[in-house]
Amino acid sequence: MKRYALGLDYGTNSVRSLLVDLADGTEVGSMVFNYPSGEMGILLDEKDPHVARQNPQDYLDGLVAATRGALAQAAEKLPDFDPSQVVGIGVDTTGSTPIPVDHRGTPLGLKPEFRGVLAAQVWLWKDHTAHAEAAEITARASEMRPHYLAKCGGTYSSEWFWSKILRIRRTAPEVFAAAHSFVEHCDWIPAVLTGTTDPAVMSRSICAAGHKAFFNIEWGGLPDAEFLSALDPALAELRDRLYVDARTADRPAGTLTAEWGALLGLPEGIVVATGAFDVHMGAVAAGISEGTLVKVLGTSTCDVMVVDASRPLPDIPGLCGVVHGSILPGYYGLEAGQSAVGDIFLWFVNHLVPESYGHTMAEKFVGLEAEMATLRPGQSGLLALDWNNGNRSILVDVRLTGLLLGQTLHTTAGEMYRALIEATAFGALTIIKRLEEYGVHVNEVVNTGGLAIKNAALMQIYADVLGRPMKVAQSEQTCALGAAMFGAVAAGAFTSLPEAQRVICRTRDVVYHPNAEAHAVYAELYTLYRTLHDAFGSATWSGQLASVMKNLLVLRERVTA
Amino acid sequence: MKRYALGLDYGTNSVRSLLVDLADGTEVGSMVFNYPSGEMGILLDEKDPHVARQNPQDYLDGLVAATRGALAQAAEKLPDFDPSQVVGIGVDTTGSTPIPVDHRGTPLGLKPEFRGVLAAQVWLWKDHTAHAEAAEITARASEMRPHYLAKCGGTYSSEWFWSKILRIRRTAPEVFAAAHSFVEHCDWIPAVLTGTTDPAVMSRSICAAGHKAFFNIEWGGLPDAEFLSALDPALAELRDRLYVDARTADRPAGTLTAEWGALLGLPEGIVVATGAFDVHMGAVAAGISEGTLVKVLGTSTCDVMVVDASRPLPDIPGLCGVVHGSILPGYYGLEAGQSAVGDIFLWFVNHLVPESYGHTMAEKFVGLEAEMATLRPGQSGLLALDWNNGNRSILVDVRLTGLLLGQTLHTTAGEMYRALIEATAFGALTIIKRLEEYGVHVNEVVNTGGLAIKNAALMQIYADVLGRPMKVAQSEQTCALGAAMFGAVAAGAFTSLPEAQRVICRTRDVVYHPNAEAHAVYAELYTLYRTLHDAFGSATWSGQLASVMKNLLVLRERVTA
Repeated sequence: MKRYALGLDYGTNSVRSLLVDLADGTEVGSMVFNYPSGEMGILLDEKDPHVARQNPQDYLDGLVAATRGALAQAAEKLPDFDPSQVVGIGVDTTGSTPIPVDHRGTPLGLKPEFRGVLAAQVWLWKDHTAHAEAAEITARASEMRPHYLAKCGGTYSSEWFWSKILRIRRTAPEVFAAAHSFVEHCDWIPAVLTGTTDPAVMSRSICAAGHKAFFNIEWGGLPDAEFLSALDPALAELRDRLYVDARTADRPAGTLTAEWGALLGLPEGIVVATGAFDVHMGAVAAGISEGTLVKVLGTSTCDVMVVDASRPLPDIPGLCGVVHGSILPGYYGLEAGQSAVGDIFLWFVNHLVPESYGHTMAEKFVGLEAEMATLRPGQSGLLALDWNNGNRSILVDVRLTGLLLGQTLHTTAGEMYRALIEATAFGALTIIKRLEEYGVHVNEVVNTGGLAIKNAALMQIYADVLGRPMKVAQSEQTCALGAAMFGAVAAGAFTSLPEAQRVICRTRDVVYHPNAEAHAVYAELYTLYRTLHDAFGSATWSGQLASVMKNLLVLRERVTA
Repeated sequence: MKRYALGLDYGTNSVRSLLVDLADGTEVGSMVFNYPSGEMGILLDEKDPHVARQNPQDYLDGLVAATRGALAQAAEKLPDFDPSQVVGIGVDTTGSTPIPVDHRGTPLGLKPEFRGVLAAQVWLWKDHTAHAEAAEITARASEMRPHYLAKCGGTYSSEWFWSKILRIRRTAPEVFAAAHSFVEHCDWIPAVLTGTTDPAVMSRSICAAGHKAFFNIEWGGLPDAEFLSALDPALAELRDRLYVDARTADRPAGTLTAEWGALLGLPEGIVVATGAFDVHMGAVAAGISEGTLVKVLGTSTCDVMVVDASRPLPDIPGLCGVVHGSILPGYYGLEAGQSAVGDIFLWFVNHLVPESYGHTMAEKFVGLEAEMATLRPGQSGLLALDWNNGNRSILVDVRLTGLLLGQTLHTTAGEMYRALIEATAFGALTIIKRLEEYGVHVNEVVNTGGLAIKNAALMQIYADVLGRPMKVAQSEQTCALGAAMFGAVAAGAFTSLPEAQRVICRTRDVVYHPNAEAHAVYAELYTLYRTLHDAFGSATWSGQLASVMKNLLVLRERVTA
């Protein structure tokens, strides 16, 4: 008998459904629902470019439309398909994306009295209004609770839970007062589906709690009341109305209510897994296991690994987070990342590529890649730092910027584009080196995300720079697929996530193998990159740079000889 | 009675004539003749991009056409004009631009047996085929005659006289063997006009000899035979067929022959001044005197000053040359420069500016300047090094390249353009600081050249960065005007060049005055520029750079607050 699971992947601008055949991972139905509110689903404030909010109603409308769309597609494709064959549902979302809710768990943004009040809506991950609050939390933690920071890379972010809550307390006290509690988007959707929105009983994601809310079972869950009081006594009071327990996403949040079953076109009683963040579920669908680095390559990157939690793990400086169970139960989830990868290429093509490369952005990318294909490593004489949006790992410093050197009077846009891709590859290598320095060995690299699928030239450069084969996950929708897998495991369709992975996860036949000659040149370039990286990124660096430009010229002459 | 002088300015692609009224400097006739040979007057070799030669016949054809054109224009404008009112002729050229000649001073390139032989033609200043020979000469001089190098900035260039001669000896021995001697372009034209092409009697320019051929009266003129022998014994033999004396350009080379008078439409007997290089004559027309820095702003820049030679002058590291009498008799001529200024902007507009700024290159410059005008100093957060073509002064290092830092995901082409202009201004300031460190005070800055006349935005940035008023010479043709002034002084129409300057030289009414607020911000940016300059340019620098990007961000926040 056929069994399916449904994954729901809430992204920044849309929600995607994916219905998966649990016999072999075949994707039998999928639909994307674009959030109708604001600008591409984001509520903006023209007075403050840091504002990024969302309308919770969009999530509910998307839940119905995307689910029904996937089911309809499956029914059309498969004559024997029956909604009763859906055994589990999993949900992933962006995060930290907290929602102020009332005592029943209803978002304030859904209540008439808060309609149009931006502070009462969902605070999307990329809302950066709370940068001052983040700096304050970092300073306070550094003083009072340095071990909190050690688990999140040393700096608390404006994108994270407590920064946003403190910001609401400070700048929208009426919203804070009306909020009985705050819930993560990834916790709220499973709660809605299972009728468990009461904050006191809602199943909370360890992934969200651990990575974004300083939650750690070693220090008793959420940050202690003394620390929160030091930020604001109201936060200490709020602590009691949040949660004391958080779960891995293979555990059920509950079962589908009759009411929501009717809305979605599914029978009641289907198991709904506890939620988690998109990248963490995506990593599972990409086949993560100990020794396998999953790289999610998009506008920015996430680099995730798992490490058996039965052994002690040292603090690894420069990671964004280390959370027990955030990816796989029984394993530490390790998260690192690059603040901008695809975004750097988009910036470059939007601002600095003349029409001689093409008229549309897509044509310009094609033109740049055509030129790039004629260039050997080292031939341009260029070297860049990939810091246009700061450096997440391993420097954890938003106050860094881009750098390009080696320009002559003949340097072309195609050469610069290649140098920018190479810079992101050097950044990726720096993360791997940091992990390995701390005993976390990378035996395999599996890539997923838009760039991994669409940009073969980039993947080859990554293979050549990293000196490792680059594999690419089969699914184009690893996040949604991962959500479905968690739904299936929560429902008992598999005994464990690794078992589900064996049945469902594949990598593509095309593997990008490193070219030994290119890798040797890149090893020399990486030494120069690392010199610049440390010189501009580390306050403890001291040294000389006079040979950098000359070494690039020597290398250029050698590879073009 | 009216008196006129004729200036002939031989540039890279054309020769320009200028007929000047000696009563007040009015320019009464001018014509440009484009060299017809090769590509825009330059003979190229598709197998070697370093080759840049010229056809000596182009110089003769241009001499006739440009002179007759200027005379015809004057005759048309001024009913009373008579060629007999022309009292003197001056000539400037590019350099070092040596010509292999036979024993009568006839260029080998004019002889049928060498037609089409590239090595037998004129070796234009920008011919860089002799880079290995230049390095060899530098090494040999550093070992045997370090005082030679002290007068030319520490490095002998591939553009200079001995490099090119040695290259001919090595790679075209048949041309070297056929060459009785070698003459600079600026010596050959006056010799042609005065019938003194015999190398034994030809008047030689101290400007060319001193700046390019290691000629210095302090060490007995040309480099000694022992040194030349160490390079190649044939050079020591050649030394006797070159010259023992070289002159300032206010001294006559001779008088116009009847034959050339007939060709030009001028009476015989007119005094023709000894030649010199374009920039040095141009500096005189721009009003150079002690304390006045003349900046010739074009694709690259020359920065020239004069210092009274009756006082001892220390060696100033980083200058391109220090030559007694190369600009004004009785003064050391000091030359510094930036390897690329206008060329950097041309590169940027050609390669990295999208059509949203305009369709033609001219439109793109207008678009960039429109955006630039909206930006305050420090607002872009960018900082660049102006080394796309190496650094002439004060690092004297061709093996340096460009650098840009501070890019974000929002950085625009207009911001980058402004950062590149600012970088060239910081480079200009570095030269002034070096001069002043060695006691050469800059009381006034007069600019000339295309950028000075056409780019008001650039001139204002220069005033703000240098913290000094930027004046602009009145004439659009200062080199040709300077040549005419030297012709007039050689003919005795003025008792001295300073007297000629009082009558003829003007600066424009528009003076760019520094804005105090902008200058204060630029002073901070210059500190950062200088840190990068020293870090990447000096083998003795050692230090830290982690604050550079952060300081730029702080500055940006302050100026936009």
